[in-house]
Amino acid sequence: MTSRPSPETIALIVGELQKHMGNRVVTSQAVRGQHANTLTWVTAEAPDAVVFAESTEEVASVVRLCADHQVPVIAFGAGSSLEGHTNAPFGGICIDLTGMAAVLAVHAEDLDCVVQPGITRKRLNEHLRDSGLFFPIDPGADATLGGMASTRASGTNAVRYGTMKDNVLALTVVLPSGEIIRTGSRARKSSAGYDLTRLFVGSEGTLGIITEMTLRLHGIPEAVSGGVCVFPTVEAACSASIAAIQAGIPVARMELADATQVRAINLYSKLALQETPALFLEFHGSAAGVEEQSQRFGEIAEEFGGGPFEWATRAEERTRLWQARHDAFWSALALRPGGAALSTDVCVPISRLAECVVATQQDIAATGLVAPIVGHVGDGNFHVIIVLDPSDKAEKAAVEGFLDRLVERALAMGGTSTGEHGIGQKKSRYMVKEHGEGAVAAMRAVKLALDPLGIMNPGKVLPS
Amino acid sequence: MTSRPSPETIALIVGELQKHMGNRVVTSQAVRGQHANTLTWVTAEAPDAVVFAESTEEVASVVRLCADHQVPVIAFGAGSSLEGHTNAPFGGICIDLTGMAAVLAVHAEDLDCVVQPGITRKRLNEHLRDSGLFFPIDPGADATLGGMASTRASGTNAVRYGTMKDNVLALTVVLPSGEIIRTGSRARKSSAGYDLTRLFVGSEGTLGIITEMTLRLHGIPEAVSGGVCVFPTVEAACSASIAAIQAGIPVARMELADATQVRAINLYSKLALQETPALFLEFHGSAAGVEEQSQRFGEIAEEFGGGPFEWATRAEERTRLWQARHDAFWSALALRPGGAALSTDVCVPISRLAECVVATQQDIAATGLVAPIVGHVGDGNFHVIIVLDPSDKAEKAAVEGFLDRLVERALAMGGTSTGEHGIGQKKSRYMVKEHGEGAVAAMRAVKLALDPLGIMNPGKVLPS
Repeated sequence: MTSRPSPETIALIVGELQKHMGNRVVTSQAVRGQHANTLTWVTAEAPDAVVFAESTEEVASVVRLCADHQVPVIAFGAGSSLEGHTNAPFGGICIDLTGMAAVLAVHAEDLDCVVQPGITRKRLNEHLRDSGLFFPIDPGADATLGGMASTRASGTNAVRYGTMKDNVLALTVVLPSGEIIRTGSRARKSSAGYDLTRLFVGSEGTLGIITEMTLRLHGIPEAVSGGVCVFPTVEAACSASIAAIQAGIPVARMELADATQVRAINLYSKLALQETPALFLEFHGSAAGVEEQSQRFGEIAEEFGGGPFEWATRAEERTRLWQARHDAFWSALALRPGGAALSTDVCVPISRLAECVVATQQDIAATGLVAPIVGHVGDGNFHVIIVLDPSDKAEKAAVEGFLDRLVERALAMGGTSTGEHGIGQKKSRYMVKEHGEGAVAAMRAVKLALDPLGIMNPGKVLPS
Repeated sequence: MTSRPSPETIALIVGELQKHMGNRVVTSQAVRGQHANTLTWVTAEAPDAVVFAESTEEVASVVRLCADHQVPVIAFGAGSSLEGHTNAPFGGICIDLTGMAAVLAVHAEDLDCVVQPGITRKRLNEHLRDSGLFFPIDPGADATLGGMASTRASGTNAVRYGTMKDNVLALTVVLPSGEIIRTGSRARKSSAGYDLTRLFVGSEGTLGIITEMTLRLHGIPEAVSGGVCVFPTVEAACSASIAAIQAGIPVARMELADATQVRAINLYSKLALQETPALFLEFHGSAAGVEEQSQRFGEIAEEFGGGPFEWATRAEERTRLWQARHDAFWSALALRPGGAALSTDVCVPISRLAECVVATQQDIAATGLVAPIVGHVGDGNFHVIIVLDPSDKAEKAAVEGFLDRLVERALAMGGTSTGEHGIGQKKSRYMVKEHGEGAVAAMRAVKLALDPLGIMNPGKVLPS
């Protein structure tokens, strides 16, 4: 359905856009290249032009023009997605939304805010700091909120605060026709009709472009405590995590790093952690509450042979620890200087997590890969960061085989091919296996209903 | 698009169904009447026949047969919906799912379970009791889980545990074509494609029929405390609630009853509460945690002139209190013996709740209605239970006017026409006003894509 537009069509569109947007329409090789896929080993496929949008109306007029000429449209934020989400396999116009990064309103009493999609999570939280509120979703990268909604991102806080699906109240979306709609309201819940908000969250820009977002905020906890607890095995760490959740301890963050990842963190972040499986933990609540939570977790950890539980009592110490955790991607690279990193994720029911991680470690060893593992253990979601030499064809092929086995393992355990990275280009081949022909056909029907011309981020999510 | 099937078509379908389902196909007036709308004043519209299904495959074969003959299909659970959701304005086949009420699996380690849609919330929790887990969503009625998913129901626990949208992990759905699909997995989160689960949750049986559900469970809290706190005004009660949420107190339940509702509860449930606005509260956590939460809430209440905070220390006392709250619908009837009750709901940003409730009380007084108010104040969601004489045409007209003004007031405050009851037949007239033409057109496109023949619960959700 989707095809690459002719050079004449592109020239015509670019000319038309320049009339209204002037030098915010860019066709230089460099800028187009920056807007193709970046953080992965997926081959970059540049768009024909990049436009830097400044308003919902402007996005709508670009989309209308593209619809008139059946030209692909790709939305772009921080470019930190991991599965080739922003590639332009059919060319077309990339709409860069980083110029739309304003906080439009903070409603402190309602614990919500309204933002433009180009703001990054760190900037949003800097803006919110004085309000006593924060936005909890924290993928590794400093992604834009629009991109985070589009990939249904989560991060280390999801076990307590949920994912983007739980923290987006409403969206303004430019549909593939160029029409502007609003999904949802500022009410905290609604039963009024189909849940369009959740339909667009996670649709990776294939159903429309998010141009405004109403987000749920949370009170900055009165007290935070956290630290690192080592375990003899991955199984012990996972069992302790499950026990903690079952006991109702409202853990805010509970992150597994395997021994290889701990070594990487020590190398990159200059820490001196014991190089065995470890849990990075954080508790939020009142002063007495976090103390009680920490103590109860310590007891549970001990039951499973874990500990000692080393507390980071000072805020700076904690920040350093979590920065180290967030830098997992970069630290993995430190294990193989000159290598390229490929980060992938799967998610399984938490009871299967230990088994899945251990089988994956064995696969890594058998395949001969350098690939530390970090996991959001409270959700059953883990990442494998493979450091490879992308010019080595045999190694690339071995990695491809490993990735297939990883997903098959997760699916066989009742899990999903991706917990938070999204499908993009590379994982669409697993969609039918995961969801079945019928469910994928239902997704296709929805896509066709909203984007009959197939212009919205073509080549993503749904298998071709 | 949808039309009423001819008597010949119905006779043919019924004959065909009887071949396979025997006396589980019922066409008696009485049974058809029981399966039309029940708990509201919406005029009952009976289906042509009711079938009592026993399996997903059976539901699929009924739907396929109906699709072949373009006959409407209406799914039916407890019949406790409030907006005419189960009416059959075009006749057709009602599929009663109460025979599909099994708990298929409880995965205690994963905090999830798999159930059939006909199980009611109380039966599910009885089944779960020994596992130490519970399912938190509790609409007033003992609804079926399938119905609760279909209306995106919530209840008194939503402020802490979310709504059905947050607690359904995966569904098995029979599509309007009769095809069986599975949405989601047992993984606690996923970024793999469009969120079909959330698309079916809240779609009120208009996109397909839910025949199996994977639900999130929660640990029964170690300690529960709760009680009633009176306030001089609705504003004071709402302000205290907002302050508690902002302070990060993880309130499990926080329910507002206005003075009229407290009087109704006293009458019906034989309590002796002070007849002023009151908050019913409950805290979940560790023993020390709930004590701290309660104490902090008491301090906040005092700041806003509330109190004393009367603690129900014994479990039986608490149960009695919450049963009284859940019986709000029935207690409202006690205010006007012989009257009929109509329960409606709206939801607004919590900062506007007090204003909306007070304006609604003034409207009730000016219109001369008997109509107590109860509210899930942590969500900004409140109910008006109007007790009327449905044979009095003038009163009915006055109520219709009141309902329109109630929704308009909520929408003007950035809210929604329904927080948890759903749209059904009666509220579809507000859909365009709430969502705009474009968003409703997008919903229609999705409906048409999945149900091109318009056979699934026609006349609901979308305005005709």
